[in-house]
Amino acid sequence: MGMDQSSTETEKATNGAVDAEAVVDVAEVDAALEIIGRGTDEIIKEEDLRKRLLKGQKLRVKVGFDPTAPDLHLGHTVILNKMRAFQDLGHTVIFLIGDFTGMIGDPTGKNVTRKVLTPAEVEANAQTYKEQVFKVLDPELTEVRFNSEWMGQKSAKDLVELASQYTVARMLERDDFEKRYREGSPIALHEFLYPMVQGYDSVALKADVEMGGTDQKFNLLVGRHLQQQFDQAPQIIITLPLLEGLDGVQKMSKSLGNYVGIHETPDEMFGKIMSISDELMWRYFDLLSFRPTSELDTLKAQMAEGRNPRDIKFELAHEIISRFHDSAAADAAQQAFVARFQRGEQPEDMPEESRAVAADGIGIAALLSDLGLTASNSEAFRMIKQGAVKIDGEKVSDRGLMMQAGFHGVLQVGKRRWCRVTLTAA
Amino acid sequence: MGMDQSSTETEKATNGAVDAEAVVDVAEVDAALEIIGRGTDEIIKEEDLRKRLLKGQKLRVKVGFDPTAPDLHLGHTVILNKMRAFQDLGHTVIFLIGDFTGMIGDPTGKNVTRKVLTPAEVEANAQTYKEQVFKVLDPELTEVRFNSEWMGQKSAKDLVELASQYTVARMLERDDFEKRYREGSPIALHEFLYPMVQGYDSVALKADVEMGGTDQKFNLLVGRHLQQQFDQAPQIIITLPLLEGLDGVQKMSKSLGNYVGIHETPDEMFGKIMSISDELMWRYFDLLSFRPTSELDTLKAQMAEGRNPRDIKFELAHEIISRFHDSAAADAAQQAFVARFQRGEQPEDMPEESRAVAADGIGIAALLSDLGLTASNSEAFRMIKQGAVKIDGEKVSDRGLMMQAGFHGVLQVGKRRWCRVTLTAA
Repeated sequence: MGMDQSSTETEKATNGAVDAEAVVDVAEVDAALEIIGRGTDEIIKEEDLRKRLLKGQKLRVKVGFDPTAPDLHLGHTVILNKMRAFQDLGHTVIFLIGDFTGMIGDPTGKNVTRKVLTPAEVEANAQTYKEQVFKVLDPELTEVRFNSEWMGQKSAKDLVELASQYTVARMLERDDFEKRYREGSPIALHEFLYPMVQGYDSVALKADVEMGGTDQKFNLLVGRHLQQQFDQAPQIIITLPLLEGLDGVQKMSKSLGNYVGIHETPDEMFGKIMSISDELMWRYFDLLSFRPTSELDTLKAQMAEGRNPRDIKFELAHEIISRFHDSAAADAAQQAFVARFQRGEQPEDMPEESRAVAADGIGIAALLSDLGLTASNSEAFRMIKQGAVKIDGEKVSDRGLMMQAGFHGVLQVGKRRWCRVTLTAA
Repeated sequence: MGMDQSSTETEKATNGAVDAEAVVDVAEVDAALEIIGRGTDEIIKEEDLRKRLLKGQKLRVKVGFDPTAPDLHLGHTVILNKMRAFQDLGHTVIFLIGDFTGMIGDPTGKNVTRKVLTPAEVEANAQTYKEQVFKVLDPELTEVRFNSEWMGQKSAKDLVELASQYTVARMLERDDFEKRYREGSPIALHEFLYPMVQGYDSVALKADVEMGGTDQKFNLLVGRHLQQQFDQAPQIIITLPLLEGLDGVQKMSKSLGNYVGIHETPDEMFGKIMSISDELMWRYFDLLSFRPTSELDTLKAQMAEGRNPRDIKFELAHEIISRFHDSAAADAAQQAFVARFQRGEQPEDMPEESRAVAADGIGIAALLSDLGLTASNSEAFRMIKQGAVKIDGEKVSDRGLMMQAGFHGVLQVGKRRWCRVTLTAA
């Protein structure tokens, strides 16, 4: 099969369905644009998005996801929230699982960690995804698709033709490729094909909008380019910032330990969200809350007038826990959190410190003495032996524990020595 | 279908068939290596070739050809002669027509001259090829193959896997890619896939040897690399120089006009071959003659002892014309050539000149006066009008004729003014 080229002018003007009746009110479109735009990094091109909204188009909003086993944290939900916002505005969201490339092995055997997914594994991962993402998305307005549907039927010839649509020089302009090429780190040829496949997915899906992290901008632009080559109107691309982790410095990531998993217990979530700085709280409100911007403005005004930031943080934590558990669980977590303070289990005010640590981290004893929580490494070792050292309330038993950059939490020695610590990469 | 990986140790040691009885005489192998090596640019690795020959392996010698309509000249026959030499030594030659890529269009529409071949056109071109090349090759020992046989069945997934076997940096080391990238001339992504396809052809064919022009060295090396990835012994690669045209400077090429087409008449061939310099004659003997090196040494000794180079050139012309026509035609062409001199139609000795010309060439009148064949441009115009100016015996009628770099031939004005001219690029 060849690459189908749909070439009617109608499709060129509008990939999605148009309600001919619809002439949407300008104020309504402005309100929609405000919701869509909140917290985004870039919209290319916003004017084009406005035009389609004014026409009353029901947009097809594509977002691609890895086919590898998903284990989502709040960082991932930034984009899910934006997808939900589109759904609330009546648009269709396409949750695209990029299984075509996930099912391709690494025949060089160089990447030993790269696991080739079987169709059964892809299906199982899709189920896991659904269980998680439908806590945010409306299943009725979500198309779950797999790009193997169309890419699995393409021939080598089709792929050569697709590759002919782009140049080596433009591909090498992608930040990470450019850097790796300059540094002499190998880029395998097929890595140049993946952005083409991702771009072609937009053609196959006739996407009106594609969203991704800021690190995806290049790939999203390839989609625009290919749609034009295939006589489709180029998709609008929306990039979203990468959410900072609890430390407020590095991006939220499981491997850095600075994350809130959406499977965590209400108590764990509550404690972690309450640990973030006031500044980061507003960032989280922007990217994670569904409250209208006007409400956020009200909250900000309240804080400026002296309302305790802790109470505002409560509202953030409550909203997020309600979403991934339920409102009752959020209430309970909040009560438990308050009770801990009332029982004096953790002081409301404690010193905050941050340290830059080397690539292999810092030993717990060295960290404790550096922070002045112990007088020396040997006192630290003794306190650990006695079970008097806790991290986020958990006793430390390994005196050789290495603390890594990205850590953000509370260290406690005995009953009176406390410190909230952020570790960053040196 | 996936890329089959044959992985037995036997195949790793030897792609071709081995006659278990055969233990080949060292002297015989040395003689074969001398024949194979004559006129080649490079053999990688000659030691490996020697080993396979000593084992008595019947080698599979692959040479790739363009699927576009062939119109061969002596330049193309350099490699055909070497293929023939392998056949004479008992090996199998694979005449591979790269039709897979020839049937792929240029969907960007940028390359308007690129014609997509239909299967029928590919078949017709193959017939034309056969008519020409079987004047040199032994049909019995020639496999004519098309790479669409295996590439046409590959999926997009297979091609991605194939692409993963090579890096962008190594691809950009290819001379022409490096130059184009540096100069900012676009390289379409699929151009990086073609060397991979060519390399995979060697895997599919289990080639022991691949030959090509020196400009093909990079692609031949990709074949070596891929065979190793697919657990085959890497093919030996043999590069052959590009034959100089009649001018002895630029490579033989139809567009430069300095060629001898294998479809030309015996008289045309004879005249053209007789026009080359004595130095170029030895080059042509090396690359175009089937005579053993010992005979060439004898001819060289004869010339050193005073034999007329013209007579030696007769032998070269006779051999080549016998190959593409027959021996009787070669005799007749030689007699006609001699008769022309005896009738004084062209002096045996005439001045030889060479000129460097600009990209758009030099006007015939300017050239004639520059060479002193006419006193002025206006005399040149007058002589042309009188029909007194000839190029290689053909009257010039167009006074605006532009002479291009690559021209090598005889200019004549009236009955007494002669010059053999070579035009080179400025």
